[in-house]
Amino acid sequence: MASRKAVLTPQAENFPRWYQEIIAKAELADNGPVRGTMVIRPYGYAIWERIQADMDVRIKAQGAENAYFPLFIPESYMRREAEHVEGFSPELAVVTHAGGKELEEPLIVRPTSETVIGEYMAKWVQSFRDLPLLLNQWANVVRWELRPRLFLRTSEFLWQEGHTAHASYEEARDYARRIAREAYAGLMTDLLAIPVVLGRKTARERFAGAVNTITAEAMMRDGKALQLGTSHELGQNFSRAFGIGFTGPGGGRELAWTTSWGTSTRMVGGLIMAHGDDQGLRIPPALAPVQVVVLAVKPEARDVARRMGGELAARQVRVTVDDRTDVAFGRRAVDWELKGIPLRVEIGPRDVEAQTAVLVRRLAGGERDVVPLADLAGRVPALLLQAQREMLAAARRARDARITPVGSMAEVPEAVSEGWATLDWDRLGPAGELELADAGITVRCLQRADGSMPDSDAEPGLVAFLARAY
Amino acid sequence: MASRKAVLTPQAENFPRWYQEIIAKAELADNGPVRGTMVIRPYGYAIWERIQADMDVRIKAQGAENAYFPLFIPESYMRREAEHVEGFSPELAVVTHAGGKELEEPLIVRPTSETVIGEYMAKWVQSFRDLPLLLNQWANVVRWELRPRLFLRTSEFLWQEGHTAHASYEEARDYARRIAREAYAGLMTDLLAIPVVLGRKTARERFAGAVNTITAEAMMRDGKALQLGTSHELGQNFSRAFGIGFTGPGGGRELAWTTSWGTSTRMVGGLIMAHGDDQGLRIPPALAPVQVVVLAVKPEARDVARRMGGELAARQVRVTVDDRTDVAFGRRAVDWELKGIPLRVEIGPRDVEAQTAVLVRRLAGGERDVVPLADLAGRVPALLLQAQREMLAAARRARDARITPVGSMAEVPEAVSEGWATLDWDRLGPAGELELADAGITVRCLQRADGSMPDSDAEPGLVAFLARAY
Repeated sequence: MASRKAVLTPQAENFPRWYQEIIAKAELADNGPVRGTMVIRPYGYAIWERIQADMDVRIKAQGAENAYFPLFIPESYMRREAEHVEGFSPELAVVTHAGGKELEEPLIVRPTSETVIGEYMAKWVQSFRDLPLLLNQWANVVRWELRPRLFLRTSEFLWQEGHTAHASYEEARDYARRIAREAYAGLMTDLLAIPVVLGRKTARERFAGAVNTITAEAMMRDGKALQLGTSHELGQNFSRAFGIGFTGPGGGRELAWTTSWGTSTRMVGGLIMAHGDDQGLRIPPALAPVQVVVLAVKPEARDVARRMGGELAARQVRVTVDDRTDVAFGRRAVDWELKGIPLRVEIGPRDVEAQTAVLVRRLAGGERDVVPLADLAGRVPALLLQAQREMLAAARRARDARITPVGSMAEVPEAVSEGWATLDWDRLGPAGELELADAGITVRCLQRADGSMPDSDAEPGLVAFLARAY
Repeated sequence: MASRKAVLTPQAENFPRWYQEIIAKAELADNGPVRGTMVIRPYGYAIWERIQADMDVRIKAQGAENAYFPLFIPESYMRREAEHVEGFSPELAVVTHAGGKELEEPLIVRPTSETVIGEYMAKWVQSFRDLPLLLNQWANVVRWELRPRLFLRTSEFLWQEGHTAHASYEEARDYARRIAREAYAGLMTDLLAIPVVLGRKTARERFAGAVNTITAEAMMRDGKALQLGTSHELGQNFSRAFGIGFTGPGGGRELAWTTSWGTSTRMVGGLIMAHGDDQGLRIPPALAPVQVVVLAVKPEARDVARRMGGELAARQVRVTVDDRTDVAFGRRAVDWELKGIPLRVEIGPRDVEAQTAVLVRRLAGGERDVVPLADLAGRVPALLLQAQREMLAAARRARDARITPVGSMAEVPEAVSEGWATLDWDRLGPAGELELADAGITVRCLQRADGSMPDSDAEPGLVAFLARAY
C-alpha cells in the first residue's frame, strides 16, 4: 500500500489544516466563487441528504409539518423585533435592485425566518383551535461571514428551521425541549454517533429575541466545542411584535407563545471533526452513504468482487464495487480510507483462488481479517451495527476523559487547553463569564448537577460547561 | 350537506378566478410579503414533497448525483455566455450590500446555475475518465416576475436543476432526451396522471444559450398549455465560455458537451389546473399525501372511525381520521372535497349500527357506495389503483378530444380557443410562428409525424403543436 505520510497533515500537528485538507481530498466541498460561500460536492451532499432524511422523520414524529416561506424579507419586518434586528444587522445581505429597477424597499436575504413566519402565523391563527401550529422549513439562509470556514461558518448554509406557536408558556417550553432532546440530541447520538451535551445557554449566548436557548454541544477531536443545534423559547416577544393572538376557550384574547429551532450543514463539519483521524474521515455506518466498498485488486478478481457486491446489496447493505483496476490499488485503498467507508473488502487473485477476502475495518483502526467468501455477506450487517455502537461508546469515553471539573475560574484556561472544564455557575456568574470571554473561553451551556435542564440561569447549584469553541 | 354553490367560482365562468380561489381555500399557498413571492402552506408543500421524492429517485436512476452550489453568482459569470445573460437580465435580483458594506462586485441571486456549475465543472473535469459528470441540485431560484401567479410564475420558486457534461455530442443529446422521457414525462404520466406531449422547442422558444430544448407540455382544463419541464442540450456553448475541457483517450484536448434540465413547483400549478373541478382539487392517489379520509359524522361514530383508520394504515394506505364532530359534518365534507382526497369514508350512527360505511369516490364524480365495515379496508387499495388508472385515461381522452388538426394558419385561432391545434411545421415556419405570437398563440413544440423527437427544426414533415399558454 502507498505510504500514508503524504495524505493529510496529522491532526496533532495542525488541526485546522487537517480539516481543510480532508474536505478537499475526500471531495466533500469547495469554496464558492463568492467569498464565504460553499459548493457542496456529491459526497458531502450525500452525507447531508442522509442527515436531512433522518431529521425530517424525527421532526415529523413531533407533529410538525413542512412549509416554505420566501427568501426575501422586507427590511421593515426585521425591524419589528428590536433585539432580533440588532443581533443580525451586521450579517445581512441586501437586495436593492430587481427586474431592472431600484426597489422602493430594500429586501433582506433571510438570515432566519422568524419575522416572515411570525407575520403568517398571525394571519393563520385565530382561535385556540388553530394551536399548536407546528411548522418546519428546509431552506438556505444567508449570514455574511468575515472569517468563513467550510461547513462550520459559511455566508450561505442549508438548514431546517422550525417555528411553532402554542397556547401556553408550558406547552411552548416543553415543545422546544422535546425537539432538542428527541429530534436533535437523538439524531446526533444515534445517527452521527456524537454524544452531545444538552444544556441551557447563558443570557450572553442566547439567540437574539429568545427568552431561553437550549443547545446541543459536541466535543471535537482537538478538544474544542461545536454547537450542533439550538432550540429557542421565544416567549411572547415575536407574537407581540407580529400580533400572533388567539381567542381562548373562554372568549378572551391572548398572545401565543412561540418557539424556533434549527440545525444545519454545520453538522457535517461536526461529523468530520468529531470522528476523523489522520487517515481521513470516519463515517458511522448508520449514516454512511457507502457502508462497504468491495475492491478488485486485479482484473482477475472483478467477477468475484461484483458478485460479492450483489450479495451485500441483497442484504440491504449500501455497497460500492471498485473495479477500476487501471488505477493503482494502493491509491484506491487510500482514497476509500480518506472517505471514511466503514468496511473495505479487498479481493486479489490469490483470494479468488482461496475463496477468501480481506475485510478491513476502517472504524476499528484498520483491523484486517481474512474471511471466507461464503461467510462474507452474512457477517457484514452485524459488523456494521457493532461498529456504530463502538463508535459512539469511544466518542463518549474520549469526551468524558477530556472534561475536567475545576473549583475556580483560575483553573479554567489550563483545563480547556485540550478539552472542556466544568465549574459551578454560582462561582462564575455573568461577570466571570465576561472575563473568560476575553480569553476566548465561553460558557457552552448550563446544566443542573444531575444533568437535567435548568428553568432559569438563576437556579442555585448549576454547572457551567466551559470551552474554546468553533 | 351544505350547498356547494358558494365554494368556488365555476371553472366555466372564470378559470383564473377559480384557480386563485382553490389555492386559497384548499390552503395550498399564500402570496408572500414581497410582490411575486409565494408562501407554500403545509398541504401544498406535502404535495410538492411527494413530487420531489419521486423525481429524486428517477433522477438518481439516470445516474446523476445531488450537489449544492451557491445562491449568489458574481455578475461577471453571467456575462460570459452572451445569449444567456441577454435572456435573463430583465429578471435578475441583485445584492449590492452585505456585511454592512457596499460590495465591490454586485451579486446576482441565481436565476439558474449554468454559469456557476460551468465554472466548477471546468475545475473538476480533466480527463475523459472524469466524464460523464452528472449533477443535480434541489434549490430555490429567483426570476423577477411582473405578472406573478402562484405556482405558475413566481419571483422565487423551488426546483431541481440538472447539469451534465459528456465526451460527445451524441451522449449529451441522448442523456437530455432520457431525462425528458424517463424522469420527466415518466413522473408526469405515472404520478401526476398528466399525459404530456414531449417535443422540441422552436428556435424562438429555446432556452437562452441552448442548441436544443426538449419540453413536456400539458393541457389544462381550460384548454391552455402549460410547460411542465424542459431539458436542454447546450452544445459546447457553456463549455467554451467556462473552459470545460478534457484530455481524450488519444491525449488530445477537447471541449465537453453539456446539458441542463429542470422541473419546478410549477408542476403543482399544473396538477391543480389539469385535474381540478368545480368542487376543488382532484389529487391522483399515487401522489396524494392523504389518500383516504375517514369522517366520523357524530361522536358515536368516533371509535369505529378510528378503528377503520387503523385498519387502513396497516395496509399502507395514507389515511387521516377526521373526528372533529364539533364542526358541522357538511362543512368538513366540503373541505375534504376541496382538498381533493381520492376516497372519503363517512361513518354515522346508523352506519355503526348497520356495521357499514359510505364510501365516496371523489375522483369518480362523487359516486357513493354503502360498504360493510368488514370489507372496507380490504377494498381500498384496489380502488386507489383503479382511480389512478382512470384519472390518466380520462385526462388523455379529454386532451386528445381537444387537439384539432388544422390545414392552414387561418384556422389556428379558432382551433386554439378551447384547446390545441396541430399544423404542419412546413406550412407555418418561423415567419408564421412570429405572426401567431402577436395573437398570443405559440408553438408549444415540434414532433415528427410518428410522435418521435426531431433532431432539427429543419426536418421535413414535422408537426407543430399550437396553443395559448400559461
